Amino acid sequence: MTVDYDKITTPSDLKRLNISELDGLCAKLRERIINVVEKNGGHLASNLGTVELTVALHYVYDCPKDKIIFDVGHQSYTHKILTGRSEAFSGLRQNGGLSGFPKPEESDCDAFTAGHASTSLSVALGLAEAARQLGSDTDIVAVIGDGALTGGMAYEALNAIGSEGLPITIVLNDNNMSISKNVGAMSKYLTRLRVSKKYVGMKNEIKRAVSIIPIFGDGILHVMDKSKVLLKRIVLSNKMFEEMGISYYGPFDGHNVRELIRTFNQVKKKRGPSIVHIITDKGHGLKSAVTDPEHSHGISSVGAMSGNDFSKDLGDFLSEAASRDNRVMAVTAAMAIGTGLEKFAISHPDRFKDVGIAEEHAVTYCAAMAAGGLKPYFAVYSTFLQRGFDQIVHDVCIGNHAVTFCVDRAGVVGADGVTHQGVFDLSYLLPIPNMTVMCPTDGKEFRSMLEFSLLFDGPLAIRYPKSYENVREHKEIVYGKWEVMSAHKESKVFVLCEGGRALDIAFKSGEQKKLNIVNARFVKPLDTEYLDGINKKGNIVITVEDNIRLGGFGMSVLGYLNSRGMQCKCAILAHDDVFIDDRDISSSLAGSGITAENIINIAKSLE
Amino acid sequence: MTVDYDKITTPSDLKRLNISELDGLCAKLRERIINVVEKNGGHLASNLGTVELTVALHYVYDCPKDKIIFDVGHQSYTHKILTGRSEAFSGLRQNGGLSGFPKPEESDCDAFTAGHASTSLSVALGLAEAARQLGSDTDIVAVIGDGALTGGMAYEALNAIGSEGLPITIVLNDNNMSISKNVGAMSKYLTRLRVSKKYVGMKNEIKRAVSIIPIFGDGILHVMDKSKVLLKRIVLSNKMFEEMGISYYGPFDGHNVRELIRTFNQVKKKRGPSIVHIITDKGHGLKSAVTDPEHSHGISSVGAMSGNDFSKDLGDFLSEAASRDNRVMAVTAAMAIGTGLEKFAISHPDRFKDVGIAEEHAVTYCAAMAAGGLKPYFAVYSTFLQRGFDQIVHDVCIGNHAVTFCVDRAGVVGADGVTHQGVFDLSYLLPIPNMTVMCPTDGKEFRSMLEFSLLFDGPLAIRYPKSYENVREHKEIVYGKWEVMSAHKESKVFVLCEGGRALDIAFKSGEQKKLNIVNARFVKPLDTEYLDGINKKGNIVITVEDNIRLGGFGMSVLGYLNSRGMQCKCAILAHDDVFIDDRDISSSLAGSGITAENIINIAKSLE
Repeated sequence: MTVDYDKITTPSDLKRLNISELDGLCAKLRERIINVVEKNGGHLASNLGTVELTVALHYVYDCPKDKIIFDVGHQSYTHKILTGRSEAFSGLRQNGGLSGFPKPEESDCDAFTAGHASTSLSVALGLAEAARQLGSDTDIVAVIGDGALTGGMAYEALNAIGSEGLPITIVLNDNNMSISKNVGAMSKYLTRLRVSKKYVGMKNEIKRAVSIIPIFGDGILHVMDKSKVLLKRIVLSNKMFEEMGISYYGPFDGHNVRELIRTFNQVKKKRGPSIVHIITDKGHGLKSAVTDPEHSHGISSVGAMSGNDFSKDLGDFLSEAASRDNRVMAVTAAMAIGTGLEKFAISHPDRFKDVGIAEEHAVTYCAAMAAGGLKPYFAVYSTFLQRGFDQIVHDVCIGNHAVTFCVDRAGVVGADGVTHQGVFDLSYLLPIPNMTVMCPTDGKEFRSMLEFSLLFDGPLAIRYPKSYENVREHKEIVYGKWEVMSAHKESKVFVLCEGGRALDIAFKSGEQKKLNIVNARFVKPLDTEYLDGINKKGNIVITVEDNIRLGGFGMSVLGYLNSRGMQCKCAILAHDDVFIDDRDISSSLAGSGITAENIINIAKSLE
Repeated sequence: MTVDYDKITTPSDLKRLNISELDGLCAKLRERIINVVEKNGGHLASNLGTVELTVALHYVYDCPKDKIIFDVGHQSYTHKILTGRSEAFSGLRQNGGLSGFPKPEESDCDAFTAGHASTSLSVALGLAEAARQLGSDTDIVAVIGDGALTGGMAYEALNAIGSEGLPITIVLNDNNMSISKNVGAMSKYLTRLRVSKKYVGMKNEIKRAVSIIPIFGDGILHVMDKSKVLLKRIVLSNKMFEEMGISYYGPFDGHNVRELIRTFNQVKKKRGPSIVHIITDKGHGLKSAVTDPEHSHGISSVGAMSGNDFSKDLGDFLSEAASRDNRVMAVTAAMAIGTGLEKFAISHPDRFKDVGIAEEHAVTYCAAMAAGGLKPYFAVYSTFLQRGFDQIVHDVCIGNHAVTFCVDRAGVVGADGVTHQGVFDLSYLLPIPNMTVMCPTDGKEFRSMLEFSLLFDGPLAIRYPKSYENVREHKEIVYGKWEVMSAHKESKVFVLCEGGRALDIAFKSGEQKKLNIVNARFVKPLDTEYLDGINKKGNIVITVEDNIRLGGFGMSVLGYLNSRGMQCKCAILAHDDVFIDDRDISSSLAGSGITAENIINIAKSLE
């Protein structure tokens, strides 16, 4: 009898299947994921790599009683389909549809919000402690990629997990890829484990050890414990984890669902913390994704507006600048392609540094390179730079070191949703003394800002979204000076724009009414001379920015005007004090009232 | 001939001594440190633990050409005395005097600013990369304690150091103490290494290996490499570091200056990265500091104002609350005593969690405990909470989890200086959606806020400085409501105070002129009803806060008033956009114009 796999939509449905029927389910799930991601965009390779793992986990554990925590959470598509969201999966990443990341509001099977890397182990320990304190019978599983293990936070948690000794199962999903090619000593170490000549032999050892015991039998525990000693001797085992007090099992084939189920059934009975090391292929089952997984990592949906790309401009500029200035270094935290540094990595491999998912280290590393006489550029998404906040204050700005932060994906980000919004960077960068913050409106201006940065001797952040729509003519960059894009002496309305999105909105409003439109290319320092000039009774100043209101550009302008005896009126268009989970950029902006219509309305109402 | 140790004030002076004369120097340095710290306050135990180490480093390396990076930097007193600051050392931690931490502005022998933990390895790698790119002959040494190794950032850097392979010497100064008793798996591991039955035997092995070779000879390298293999077999060696591609030497006796010099002379010639593991006693040479090093960690100067202590109030409250509410958990990042949790640790050991210097993990761990039904309190210094910023946004606030942050040492901190100022927390907390922020003015109000927090179901930060001077009568805490402390209908001036320092200043000004004085106990949400009531033509609103201006309390008030059509005038007393390095609290406040006089002057000028 053929199984109707479309009807397998909950963990209980899944548990009714025979193990022999699971391969068929996996094939079906894989097909489903490919279809939806090709239409809606999303993370393809990582989800194709974790189909068997997720099926095995739900076969063994009981969600929502048990908690499966997906690190980053970009690999949770199979989990979503199998936990009551099969139909909704077609609306993945669309407005009103499923998030591309775990989201407790969607399902009580999503144990915790995710989106950023390396948090799952801390979450696992917190949930395990709660279960212990409250005496609840909950198994805790964290699924973490080898890439996320380069994040220091994961190590802090491993340290605590080894110390606390609570029964947490850590699945180390090892595909030798974070997003860019994996880097660092940990990666080399995992590779050594993987490529050990004894790997095949060991796999046979395990098979032998587990095949003699019934799957749900009790006796196997002892065999596993003995085989652990054996494995240690055969493969060196994973000393690093063992040293931390965490039992290590593996590596296993992450696409062998039967082997995974056997393993989880055994590990489930262990008392202390365990690591189950599995080897998967990112993009398993789809040829292009396996051979080029980084480009399949995040896929934009078909028909998504492409526009011009700030990231590409950055890569072009830095490659060229590095050829004439041997101080230039480019640093990324596992985002070489996303931030546009791919070209630089090829043109200047010796001055390209991918530190892995390690933003804290990246920031201080740049500070020290600057102190040593180099000119480092850290290209990083706004949302991920949050990880380096303390280091920006303590290591870059106190010492006033000339690190340039190329803050990509600033502002609202669209489909990635709530965990990835780049709407906080102005608020956390502006209060830091010694920091300069610029916002380009297009690639042409961006290039001039980057030229400016080469000569600039202090901490500098250049923030920009993924793309720009219009390219305009610009005046030369002068420190702390804004650029008037449209001047109308008869108009008393001054629209001060932070970045290209704001400028486009202002121009759109200007089509209906003539306004003074200003490119506030320096958000810090403000152009106080210009502000003094327009701070007159009867004038209306409207600031427009793609950042949260508190601590942002508009508040900074207002603070200055107020400190000088405010004569004009001032209105601030910015994001409200809520987390934004719209999945497209224009509705995110409109939801906060950052629209051309609002500029016109405010201008009228304040007149 | 007796050496005049007082004349040894530079690395070249030091190098002219015979090795046999160094023990005498160390004794003298130790005496000097004890005298100054007993007078000025400072870090005693850690500095007494690193006298021999620092002497050995300066005997072998050439500062400022070579770079010695002290992690945290609280153990750099010997270094300061030996690098041209012997006389100035008497003014340690005083206004206009030496900083208690490395400070490049003081000496070119201070390679990099420090103050926060776990940064030294990233700094070392950045400086090493700069030396490599620019072809300079610079040796790089990072001195890091075992406590700082619990910080994830150090692991990110180790990962990178292992991968890059540059010649960096990491001195692991192992005293089994971070600030509180060291915690975590790494600590257990180091302990295993230390207490290995083979430790003594191995030390003899090393002594034998090195004693047959002249100190500056070349031949020893081979012997060391061979002995490395030998050591590995004898003591298990430090597999963890070796696995990361970093050569491991040790453990050595960190108080044997001769042994240290021999070791550094050898390691200096190595090409790749090395770890030299030394064992020291915190407080070596001073009995009370050895037996109770945490209490000798940071010592306040004699005669320093004590006042009442918020930290103590926190500990008292939580100990008592935990007895009646079994959800209460208390978390610290290696600051059990500093944050007042010592009592709780004793009364509720099972619900006390010291995660080590690991703020990122601590924040997310708390978020997950809250998600699991517990009521976690994270007691942390304002300046160190900066490390957890991303986790507050991503793990606590998006999911709206009921974590209470007890943000200690908020505002200016006095003697610890520029790296420890708690003047950014309002700026980085207020812009985060779902966050509530309160500021108690005294211990009585703090207790009410903590009672309030027990019932509050969302992210909450309570920020406060070390101490308070006055205790006042207070009204009940009502969410989002301020407390009018002094009402004068005839007065048009409204002084809105964030915290006790602001309130004291306002009352001081009120002695000369009757003002309306308000305790703005909720900084987020603002008491908009109250603000609407005073937003009238002719009224003057003066906000007073112990935070940087941009993104702080006053700006938030101004933004609200402006959004409602501002009728009153508004002045903001807050810290200016510069790093503050005054060493006492009142001059730090005065330097920013946060004074009673200024309140009066502003009230007059805006009339």
